[in-house]
Amino acid sequence: MYYPDLSGRRIERDRHPAGRPAATGGGQPKSIIKSPRFSLWLSRFPSCAPAMAASSLLRSLTRHARRGCAGTGAFSYYRHQQQQLWSPFSTSAAAAAAGARDEAARRGFPGLGPTAKGEKARVVVLGTGWAGSRLMKDLNTSACDVVCVAPRNHMVFTPLLASTCVGTLEFRSVAEPLARIQPAVSKSPGSYFLLARCTGVDPDAHTIDCETVTDGEKGALEPWKFKVAYDKLVFACGAEASTFGIHGVTEHAIFLREVHHAQEIRRRLLLNLMLSDVPGISEEEKRKLLHCVVVGGGPTGVEFSGELSDFILRDVKQRYSHVKDYINVTLIEANEILSSFDVRLRQYATNQLIKFLCVHRIGVDEWLRVPSVQDVYAIGDCSGFLESTGKDVLPALAQVAERQGKYLASLLNHVMKAGGGHANSETEADLGPPFVYKHLGSMATVGRYKALVDLRQSKESRGISIAGFVSFFIWRSAYLTRVISWRNRFYVAINWLTTLLFGRDISRI
Amino acid sequence: MYYPDLSGRRIERDRHPAGRPAATGGGQPKSIIKSPRFSLWLSRFPSCAPAMAASSLLRSLTRHARRGCAGTGAFSYYRHQQQQLWSPFSTSAAAAAAGARDEAARRGFPGLGPTAKGEKARVVVLGTGWAGSRLMKDLNTSACDVVCVAPRNHMVFTPLLASTCVGTLEFRSVAEPLARIQPAVSKSPGSYFLLARCTGVDPDAHTIDCETVTDGEKGALEPWKFKVAYDKLVFACGAEASTFGIHGVTEHAIFLREVHHAQEIRRRLLLNLMLSDVPGISEEEKRKLLHCVVVGGGPTGVEFSGELSDFILRDVKQRYSHVKDYINVTLIEANEILSSFDVRLRQYATNQLIKFLCVHRIGVDEWLRVPSVQDVYAIGDCSGFLESTGKDVLPALAQVAERQGKYLASLLNHVMKAGGGHANSETEADLGPPFVYKHLGSMATVGRYKALVDLRQSKESRGISIAGFVSFFIWRSAYLTRVISWRNRFYVAINWLTTLLFGRDISRI
Repeated sequence: MYYPDLSGRRIERDRHPAGRPAATGGGQPKSIIKSPRFSLWLSRFPSCAPAMAASSLLRSLTRHARRGCAGTGAFSYYRHQQQQLWSPFSTSAAAAAAGARDEAARRGFPGLGPTAKGEKARVVVLGTGWAGSRLMKDLNTSACDVVCVAPRNHMVFTPLLASTCVGTLEFRSVAEPLARIQPAVSKSPGSYFLLARCTGVDPDAHTIDCETVTDGEKGALEPWKFKVAYDKLVFACGAEASTFGIHGVTEHAIFLREVHHAQEIRRRLLLNLMLSDVPGISEEEKRKLLHCVVVGGGPTGVEFSGELSDFILRDVKQRYSHVKDYINVTLIEANEILSSFDVRLRQYATNQLIKFLCVHRIGVDEWLRVPSVQDVYAIGDCSGFLESTGKDVLPALAQVAERQGKYLASLLNHVMKAGGGHANSETEADLGPPFVYKHLGSMATVGRYKALVDLRQSKESRGISIAGFVSFFIWRSAYLTRVISWRNRFYVAINWLTTLLFGRDISRI
Repeated sequence: MYYPDLSGRRIERDRHPAGRPAATGGGQPKSIIKSPRFSLWLSRFPSCAPAMAASSLLRSLTRHARRGCAGTGAFSYYRHQQQQLWSPFSTSAAAAAAGARDEAARRGFPGLGPTAKGEKARVVVLGTGWAGSRLMKDLNTSACDVVCVAPRNHMVFTPLLASTCVGTLEFRSVAEPLARIQPAVSKSPGSYFLLARCTGVDPDAHTIDCETVTDGEKGALEPWKFKVAYDKLVFACGAEASTFGIHGVTEHAIFLREVHHAQEIRRRLLLNLMLSDVPGISEEEKRKLLHCVVVGGGPTGVEFSGELSDFILRDVKQRYSHVKDYINVTLIEANEILSSFDVRLRQYATNQLIKFLCVHRIGVDEWLRVPSVQDVYAIGDCSGFLESTGKDVLPALAQVAERQGKYLASLLNHVMKAGGGHANSETEADLGPPFVYKHLGSMATVGRYKALVDLRQSKESRGISIAGFVSFFIWRSAYLTRVISWRNRFYVAINWLTTLLFGRDISRI
């Protein structure tokens, strides 16, 4: 499994049968079960991917790299006009700056222009997942400005998302606004959070094309296009959820990657519970309404099934006692589920699961740089080591993304300090040691007060591998320390406490 | 202002100019301002109304009452088939009962059939607002079964709803599931919560027609029709929000009556704040995006404006410092706003505000019974005293609705005890004293740590009328004691504490 090199050379990659990505071992289900009124499609990975098309950006990047030269076509026009762009930092008079920006807007090229030598360098980060958030948290904003472009203004604690579907945790407790992770984006005059999608990259001009995201909200601003010049660009936009080419997934199932997915699952679950209580509904219809199908036996799928069974055992028995005997959960997995967790997790993670999500990824070197283009990095799910690095493929886990974000922040802070912050000024000498991933262990809850914790590097290595109440306690404590702000740590603890005391919340709002 | 009597007599009512309901004094705005990208339409009342059409039910009820006889047309067919209906309580064998219900379903008449003499009487309540929730909370379920039919499974603490729009409180904290208010609906074999709309009433047959509510959820059950027989029927379905006949309200404004309205306002507010931060947006467009128009200067409008100004003063200044100078709030009110609160609240409430919402109401007598039909009651916003009672018109306040619910619960408990629980068996002698409303005072927050509290019966009477921090404290404490469950009291307190410590939440989920 290799990744494309952007230098124009073709690199050997796994080939899949036409129209269907590689599947593990015994084969995937080819179409999703249609009879249940409600089924879930879970990514196997606690993934940080926002709804952004890394693949299209990659195509844009590749096109530029292959062309091998800039300044042609539409881009030459843009470059020609570039000096007209307003740079918010080129003058201290805010009014004049606003006027200049309006002027730029009228000319059809609104945006943030390139930074000048004396100003802070600008790091543009695409995405607010685990990787991007950790990177922005650690960036030294006294040495550089941060501009984040993403379609959502918060990070989601994906490992706790399954708990929100059944009301163990509140949705709000697992979402952290970026402005709290990196306050500079709302306070510092040169740092911004921009609610937009990145639609293209011009690596020669060191600019990206953006378009605002309005979710089709009626009466909102029409989609607005603008450009942002960067000194350093970081792809942290995650991977798109894979359907493994199975028909019907998009129409009939719900993914579990964003807070609104969890909300949809909760609303549907409560709706079906109430509908099945209506007089005259047949036995068969009841069983259909209350049959939950979870696809994917990875950590997320297993954790969700565990939460669901807790919900049924405790809350449904009490609150929907008329229909409690009709509810069923089916977990579908083409290979082995997490029962193999504590004996060969690492092998499982590295050898099998990864195969799915790493197609469409951006190749990076040991310093997480995208080769052939200057000042561009990629971290998290959207990135993968190039074959030339000789490094292992890393699993699409929150742990990997967060570690890469942390590493890149220290690398960029180092580069800024060494004077290589501005566009095209970075030298090899500025870089520190390359990125090395060390697996710290894996965890999954499998039901009430039970979790599997594997703190070993591999099945051969020494370490801790435990199950049961102690591991449940470790799991909860570990996540509490991962949750970034004190406010959310506090809320998660309060949610757990109230769930323990009063049961889960069943309002359908 | 009088209400229709269902006996068939025409009763004198206020006449409005064609196509436009009565307006107070100087006239209402005739069309809503279209320039702001986001405007709010607030009911002047903390209202308990769910999205249910009391007026159409009333029409159905009136039609039957006027006809003066039953057993004709479609209803005779239903009555003829009535004995085929499955009553879940007529046999102890659950399997046989389920079979009978299926059989009934196949014949096209699913539902809950009439109760037999030896069984508990069935009280059917339409709505889960302040009135209905309080009624169900206090009903003695060892003496009767409760069946609630409503399109939402929770009660909303409407007086705190404005706080959720800007993140002072979480949405979950102001919604209380009915199953917690009255646990019998989920535990007792004869009590149910049914997620459905009531579409018609047959007072002679003592049945209601229902249809399930699925919100157009894809893949959910098709709308399912069924009937429920009642011994006592209580209308507590609130009033529809009035647009005062003003054009554009439905298309351009957001009401504030349900949790999803508050969610929509919060999403829109955060979206516009972020959009206005995008490079190149003109000054004019920014001001448009950040101009919030609140229509209605009653308690809800004033409280929302207060919350919004707190949000701007504290959170927007910190979190959206780039655009803080562009945000504006305009409060529109055709008459006087709440500045007149502490000198003539009661007059204001009883003489002016009421005029709007009371048209389309169901007339009731002193015991809250709907005349001319047996065993039917109406409480809350959807009800109003008949002229013949000689009683004052009551304002559409949470306070009134809650008190009526409490009163009717004690009346019904009394009737059950006296043996008048079953259909057509109630006598005048079973009723206790009539309902008397005593105004306990009014409160409204007007910004950070400030509230107006008026504990006087009328402006002439003696009592407490205070403003400032002390009243703010009384206001918060008073609402904390109104919130029904300990879980939600706890959450509201925790929300206020975290807002104080960390500011409001700004994730747009």
